Amino acid sequence: MSHFELISQDPGCAARRGVLTTAHGAVQTPAFMPVGTAGAVKGIVPDLLKETGAEIILANTYHLMLRPGVDVVEKLGGLHRLMAWDRPILTDSGGYQVFSLNALTEIDDEGVEFASHIDGARVRLNAETAIDIQNRLGADVIMAFDECTPFPAEKNDVEKAVARTIAWAERSKAAHRRSGQLLFGIVQGGVHPDLRSACAEEIVQIGFDGYALGGLSVGEGHENMIRTVEHTAPLLPTTAPRYLMGVGMPADLIAAVRAGIDMFDCVLPTRNGRNAFAFTAQGPIRLRNSTHIDSTEPVEPGCDCYCCRHFVRGTIRHFFNAGEMLGPILLSIHNLRFFQRLMSTIRTQIEEGRFSAWAEEALKTYATASDNP
Amino acid sequence: MSHFELISQDPGCAARRGVLTTAHGAVQTPAFMPVGTAGAVKGIVPDLLKETGAEIILANTYHLMLRPGVDVVEKLGGLHRLMAWDRPILTDSGGYQVFSLNALTEIDDEGVEFASHIDGARVRLNAETAIDIQNRLGADVIMAFDECTPFPAEKNDVEKAVARTIAWAERSKAAHRRSGQLLFGIVQGGVHPDLRSACAEEIVQIGFDGYALGGLSVGEGHENMIRTVEHTAPLLPTTAPRYLMGVGMPADLIAAVRAGIDMFDCVLPTRNGRNAFAFTAQGPIRLRNSTHIDSTEPVEPGCDCYCCRHFVRGTIRHFFNAGEMLGPILLSIHNLRFFQRLMSTIRTQIEEGRFSAWAEEALKTYATASDNP
Repeated sequence: MSHFELISQDPGCAARRGVLTTAHGAVQTPAFMPVGTAGAVKGIVPDLLKETGAEIILANTYHLMLRPGVDVVEKLGGLHRLMAWDRPILTDSGGYQVFSLNALTEIDDEGVEFASHIDGARVRLNAETAIDIQNRLGADVIMAFDECTPFPAEKNDVEKAVARTIAWAERSKAAHRRSGQLLFGIVQGGVHPDLRSACAEEIVQIGFDGYALGGLSVGEGHENMIRTVEHTAPLLPTTAPRYLMGVGMPADLIAAVRAGIDMFDCVLPTRNGRNAFAFTAQGPIRLRNSTHIDSTEPVEPGCDCYCCRHFVRGTIRHFFNAGEMLGPILLSIHNLRFFQRLMSTIRTQIEEGRFSAWAEEALKTYATASDNP
Repeated sequence: MSHFELISQDPGCAARRGVLTTAHGAVQTPAFMPVGTAGAVKGIVPDLLKETGAEIILANTYHLMLRPGVDVVEKLGGLHRLMAWDRPILTDSGGYQVFSLNALTEIDDEGVEFASHIDGARVRLNAETAIDIQNRLGADVIMAFDECTPFPAEKNDVEKAVARTIAWAERSKAAHRRSGQLLFGIVQGGVHPDLRSACAEEIVQIGFDGYALGGLSVGEGHENMIRTVEHTAPLLPTTAPRYLMGVGMPADLIAAVRAGIDMFDCVLPTRNGRNAFAFTAQGPIRLRNSTHIDSTEPVEPGCDCYCCRHFVRGTIRHFFNAGEMLGPILLSIHNLRFFQRLMSTIRTQIEEGRFSAWAEEALKTYATASDNP
């Protein structure tokens, strides 16, 4: 049996409904992965995280390798034990954070050397070490080491990054030792269709358990992102899961699913939750706003999340105002549930063959909502 | 039926096992109340708080009157609705915080005027307003307005505070309007037996649903505190609950129960939890300590709390090290459970008539443990 099974495809677009099978259980796709950067989804105990409907979560290799370090994670029994999460986990390769968090990064064909954002220590990372660390962390899905280019970037630089990404993908696959872990390759190429095509061809040629689109959601905007996804997704095997890294807002998710994407991760639900920003089907709500001071409405009427079942807007506003941790905690829970409910709706719409019509309407709603915090 | 029923008394000391009945249910005594200063027990959602065994929690009138304000709490449906807590709640009178948090406090026989610690606004509080606010907040147990003296203090000043506390107790009782709320009186008098005796006599004469010892745990030390409790508790009616305010460490609780105290509140479990300090039956543990870096032991072996069931010491240390909210959250949960388990053990020991022997041994354990953070 393959690790990825397609259940149905929407008749009107490229949207797919599937199941990804991992060593820690199945993931219904399209799926959204909450981010547990350093081994914790910020402020959310595992039971409450499960209650949001999350089936798979993401942790960052970069953060974990620096603190507490892979030796410690191993001694503590591996990543699942550390996070007290018995469902699937995906780790990224560390590449994205190396480039985004560190000014003092030196890169060559061998790999990268960077100054830790924690203590400035010089650290080397390359395909072999990134895979070795991920093997030892023990996630269910691990990622090839890649070079992520910023936006905007000279096409020449993107081309070099693509070449390295391909070479490192090959080395990543060769370095992968741990059975039971799925290894995904990453397609780079910025917003350039020709570079995306070239990269996709090589990465598919090498062969992976799944394929990710990297280097998006780095400032290129919704239109550029979706155009790139629509160009690239069809170049990937239909039989493997497709993962759009670091995305995104509700409109991004819907449009990317329409283009054939199966997996997403993003810090938005938790980061925005910590900043008093709530996602709702009626558009965003800023809970610090004084209009909510004595509101007895839940954050999102009809929502079944822990926050909306127990607390009203006026209370959440008070918690943020008073600096109470419960504000960020409860709003993160709501936002995580909002994202999982959106994915659940998307899956149902695909199953029932109505996704493309639904998506057209939904994109209007979420595009008109000014939903950036 | 009285609101307070004594189930059993220890044959070897003054310890009592009782049940306090309130509008939101029963409380088994001796009881420990976690503190939800501004309407939230910091970082702990109500379901997890219930799981620690808490039957009654405390909220601070002073904090709630300043933010969000009693009007807002009323509009949001009252304190139980705000806190999403359907079990009993006790509010203090605000007096303690007025004196401890504000340098610019003016006090006369009528009441106090202070500068809000939030915005410096001048606020007046007296017996009538303190009771009115507590009536409107809607807790199950409310406290008379009192003057809390610091330690050390001139005996003359303590005497004046006792006189005011008595006068304000009378006014508090007269001002109390809301049925279904129990009103407790407070005995002041510092560490002076004669003043405690005089105050207790007057407060009992006025007549309340319960009696609190205030003005302790303000720097006088364990010996002074317990000597004062041992002197004062027998002066109070056996038929009403006795509440030692703001206490305390495990040894304080055990010694005070032995002297006949039924109720306690303290921020220690949550405050120490936020500072990486764990209470355990084997003595305190500081989770930032590098000795825990790769420890796969739970915080307290054998503990049934959410933290100990899911996480090991090495992980908790990592969370504190990385600034993850889960560190403070999980350790607060553990400490709250530790305190509730201690109270549960105390109740069982009293029921079985073995408390005084048990307490003697337990006090040795907790006295030798250097258990201040």
